[in-house]
Amino acid sequence: MDLALCRTCWSNTAIRGLWDTVHPPTGLDNVVQVVVSVCDPWKVLVDVSNATRLKGGGQSNAERLAELFPKSQVVKGFNVVSAWALQAGAHDGSRQVLICSDCSDSKAAVLQLTRRLGFSPVDVGGLCASRDIEEAPLMLFPSWGGPILATFLLFLFFYGYSFVRHILLPYLDKGENSFYQLPLVTVNEALPAVALVTLALVYLPGLLAAVLQLGRGTKYKRFPRWLDSWLCGRKQLGLLSFLCAALHAVYSVCLALRRAAGYTLLNAAYRQVKAGVENSWVEQQVWRSDLYLSCGILGFGVLALLAVTSLPSVGNALNWREFTFVQSGLGYAALTLSVMHTLFFGWDFAFFPFAYPYYLPPVYLLALILPCTVLVGRIFLALPCITWRLAKIRRGWESARHRPPNIQEPAEVDPPRSSGDV
Amino acid sequence: MDLALCRTCWSNTAIRGLWDTVHPPTGLDNVVQVVVSVCDPWKVLVDVSNATRLKGGGQSNAERLAELFPKSQVVKGFNVVSAWALQAGAHDGSRQVLICSDCSDSKAAVLQLTRRLGFSPVDVGGLCASRDIEEAPLMLFPSWGGPILATFLLFLFFYGYSFVRHILLPYLDKGENSFYQLPLVTVNEALPAVALVTLALVYLPGLLAAVLQLGRGTKYKRFPRWLDSWLCGRKQLGLLSFLCAALHAVYSVCLALRRAAGYTLLNAAYRQVKAGVENSWVEQQVWRSDLYLSCGILGFGVLALLAVTSLPSVGNALNWREFTFVQSGLGYAALTLSVMHTLFFGWDFAFFPFAYPYYLPPVYLLALILPCTVLVGRIFLALPCITWRLAKIRRGWESARHRPPNIQEPAEVDPPRSSGDV
Amino acid sequence: MDLALCRTCWSNTAIRGLWDTVHPPTGLDNVVQVVVSVCDPWKVLVDVSNATRLKGGGQSNAERLAELFPKSQVVKGFNVVSAWALQAGAHDGSRQVLICSDCSDSKAAVLQLTRRLGFSPVDVGGLCASRDIEEAPLMLFPSWGGPILATFLLFLFFYGYSFVRHILLPYLDKGENSFYQLPLVTVNEALPAVALVTLALVYLPGLLAAVLQLGRGTKYKRFPRWLDSWLCGRKQLGLLSFLCAALHAVYSVCLALRRAAGYTLLNAAYRQVKAGVENSWVEQQVWRSDLYLSCGILGFGVLALLAVTSLPSVGNALNWREFTFVQSGLGYAALTLSVMHTLFFGWDFAFFPFAYPYYLPPVYLLALILPCTVLVGRIFLALPCITWRLAKIRRGWESARHRPPNIQEPAEVDPPRSSGDV
Repeated sequence: MDLALCRTCWSNTAIRGLWDTVHPPTGLDNVVQVVVSVCDPWKVLVDVSNATRLKGGGQSNAERLAELFPKSQVVKGFNVVSAWALQAGAHDGSRQVLICSDCSDSKAAVLQLTRRLGFSPVDVGGLCASRDIEEAPLMLFPSWGGPILATFLLFLFFYGYSFVRHILLPYLDKGENSFYQLPLVTVNEALPAVALVTLALVYLPGLLAAVLQLGRGTKYKRFPRWLDSWLCGRKQLGLLSFLCAALHAVYSVCLALRRAAGYTLLNAAYRQVKAGVENSWVEQQVWRSDLYLSCGILGFGVLALLAVTSLPSVGNALNWREFTFVQSGLGYAALTLSVMHTLFFGWDFAFFPFAYPYYLPPVYLLALILPCTVLVGRIFLALPCITWRLAKIRRGWESARHRPPNIQEPAEVDPPRSSGDV
Repeated sequence: MDLALCRTCWSNTAIRGLWDTVHPPTGLDNVVQVVVSVCDPWKVLVDVSNATRLKGGGQSNAERLAELFPKSQVVKGFNVVSAWALQAGAHDGSRQVLICSDCSDSKAAVLQLTRRLGFSPVDVGGLCASRDIEEAPLMLFPSWGGPILATFLLFLFFYGYSFVRHILLPYLDKGENSFYQLPLVTVNEALPAVALVTLALVYLPGLLAAVLQLGRGTKYKRFPRWLDSWLCGRKQLGLLSFLCAALHAVYSVCLALRRAAGYTLLNAAYRQVKAGVENSWVEQQVWRSDLYLSCGILGFGVLALLAVTSLPSVGNALNWREFTFVQSGLGYAALTLSVMHTLFFGWDFAFFPFAYPYYLPPVYLLALILPCTVLVGRIFLALPCITWRLAKIRRGWESARHRPPNIQEPAEVDPPRSSGDV
Repeated sequence: MDLALCRTCWSNTAIRGLWDTVHPPTGLDNVVQVVVSVCDPWKVLVDVSNATRLKGGGQSNAERLAELFPKSQVVKGFNVVSAWALQAGAHDGSRQVLICSDCSDSKAAVLQLTRRLGFSPVDVGGLCASRDIEEAPLMLFPSWGGPILATFLLFLFFYGYSFVRHILLPYLDKGENSFYQLPLVTVNEALPAVALVTLALVYLPGLLAAVLQLGRGTKYKRFPRWLDSWLCGRKQLGLLSFLCAALHAVYSVCLALRRAAGYTLLNAAYRQVKAGVENSWVEQQVWRSDLYLSCGILGFGVLALLAVTSLPSVGNALNWREFTFVQSGLGYAALTLSVMHTLFFGWDFAFFPFAYPYYLPPVYLLALILPCTVLVGRIFLALPCITWRLAKIRRGWESARHRPPNIQEPAEVDPPRSSGDV
């Protein structure tokens, strides 16, 4: 393989030749035949094929190629680069090219070639990594499926509940037509509830893991599978919660912009003039709206900071302690502020019977159940005796029943802070 | 070059010496003389000079240096690092130092030195890459020029059109003074039109490329130059469209905050009271405003997701299928929602003569032409027979007139999904 | 160390063994004893320990280990990876693993192992970098302390000033109860002042540095320590200024949403109807509010662009000239627009005595002092004669008293543009 190819002399024809050779549109068996006839003088074989389906374990195309050509050095890469990107240079989309090989010299040569083509190669290790590389183009946000489904079901539940309570039952009961509330008002009642419950779902698995570690008396036993995948989905849940909170903020602002708000205000002005009320100021309502707006803005601001630190490039710039501080400290601050926002919004209305038409409690009461549980659980775990035992377990201590009988408990001489936290 | 230099012993004086030696303020010829007298014992020459003008092809400073010192190993790098960054450590701005050389040992040594200085070196290949490195500091957003110019001209057109239609002609005709609309209202009429047309311009070149491939019957012929550069500017156009949409959102909210809105509402309340209208509610207007606000919020939300995935670190974390899904699927969703936002905003007003004062159609009608064309074209390309032929071409199939006569058409045996899409 | 370990066979037990061995919870002395008994056959020792306190210079754990085992190759790394991340794969948080060693072969082996485990290793150079790696987990946003403290003190000052001027003194003097303004109105009066002063603090140190260079006649003398750390904190100050500006924008929008705004409008409508004023339009007030909203939106938009370019992945994609253009050019544009926003907001009210109750000037007047000083200073430095001298100094020229007597002033023959700017 001639690596003296320079970007400028990498002509259209050359690309077409290379592409046709290494990327024939006819399955692996044909690849082999084509390659046999062409690349005898080559020492380095670049396999650019993609997997056609998720195999979940079997041999990758590149590994099969390596078996068939034991004398050649197989390098995997370029499978997700389009012919147009090779011609026009790496512009939008990903400049990254994942490359792996068992032969480090060939890999270095291909890495260098990739750089000259204007891409940024990423060395992902030996040829066994080619399975992931080949199957990558088949995946569509694999880690987002569960969280999106959970958020969507929550939204459906709260939207349906609010629809039944505010629109359907009054319509059936008294014939009131409030269907105009469907596109904005009802959505904006469901969204904050979804955001609040989803944010609680971010912090619930961490509490469950801590309780499990406390109960088991060791950190070396694996968590059950469902808890593991829940723990892995926290970032996605948090971002979806932020998305719902952002939509809630925008919807709330738009509620004041729409025609209905103008009509309501004009009619209120008409009534006030007719009733001859010079000053309609209600101090308590002013305090209520100012307090819940304040808490909402601050909670949303903290959530926005959390969302920014979940950007890969920002997260990479944080060290472990900073990341924990942001995700755990700021996260609980956001949860507390959101709960306060909802409590101030609810004020004392929940204590009056008119808040329960058709015996249905208001949406925000339902949405508060899980977040309050999480906050109470967190406070419980922060009790000194429990914190102390949990910290001991996370430093590696195990209760007697887990320790092999011949090993003595190591003396607790001010151990260095371990990084084994969840 | 002594690479044992550690960060702590890298004193002020040492930097000044190094800097003066390798970075004299006096052109390449003087560099050569200085270097000759100083670096005889050196084996590795680090060229830190910048190009003084865009050459578009000629030899770079580093290549000339390598010719003049055939016994030394020339490494290019550090040309955009300021003396202050070397002293104070790499803080804000870019920590990245692009480095290239033809000698991999010397390059490795300089890469290592760069890491010790606290920077993050990026290996960009052989010494021929030094042309790009040297000219980099001369470029000022080279890929943004065309898109920004197009967006600015569109803004000028729509702003001027709206100014003539709403302010100038009524002033000349009836003497109405509405110049107070210039800073906010007119801008907010032009911005959404610009955002909509720019978003359509993002998806038009992809359609044109598909039509071209269909007409030519092959994907191996290069696109014309203007289409190539248009395709390369799609990301920039999309971000500018998002910027205009964001400004439109903020302006719309501010329209409700400004004094004029308060005065208008007060005067409307006065008129309602004088007219004795108890309820001014218009159900149709309520639905109209709620529907266009909903579509607008959702469309803007999807555009925001698109903008987030165009951040380099987020885009790098997506695989090719995810990237296509986001950019194409979500992109067309945003375009459709934006068109619906505009249609709901327009309601049925366009069918009444009063919408055409001075025979000028409203701004939003003009803005809808291109987006609707793009959507119709996309639906046309989604017809089964056309989709099938396009997919075949993108897998590498060519119509008979392009194939060399001696090569037979390969059997179509469930080919692996090619990544040759545009 | 057997590097054939593959991701799939890296079982729970293996991790626990490895973890316990290299990460015992009992201080370095015990580490040594454990390691002696276990790793005799090993050639590569991976030190995963963390520092227990900031030492500020002494030997790192890894360096001590390397002294104790002169025959082994010590590699530092994995100190901030939790046991759970090793089990469950690198998901949220940082995938980056910082690795350093004096032996490049061992380092390459560990880099490769890290890639196979699914992390992304970063080579940070020789073993002397282990001091920073070990102390990293002890740092909590070290570069943010000063800027956050400064912003917080500014906020306290402006909040207190506004509280005294608008709420406390009227209450003591006339018994007016406006304490309901505390959560929103007073905060929203302090926030823009903080944002404006903080933005001015971003550009003040650059001016001071230029003045210092002009006065000294050389760029090769180090700045005083306080100026150096101020220059290093500009990015943080800018982001905090953006945060305050964003909060100010959200608070301003919310001011129109809250109950008090509705009550005020209703009462104004009542008064207008009672007074029989048909049209309450005041052209001057309309212009004032439209102009300050326009300037505010544009200034905030420019600040948002600045904040986006301070994301590491975006900043890395900019070259030096683009970065300077964005940070300096756009930054001063944002400062100018913010000052204009404040001036339009103030209009001519500052010239009337009623703006000075209790002889206290309004908050925005205080906030304008520093930004105006910075803008005047910038215009002064842009005078041709001063610009010329400053450019000469930044290209490396020194005034006669700094030059050693035996070196002649180099001829000024159209020097290449140096990158020595601050």
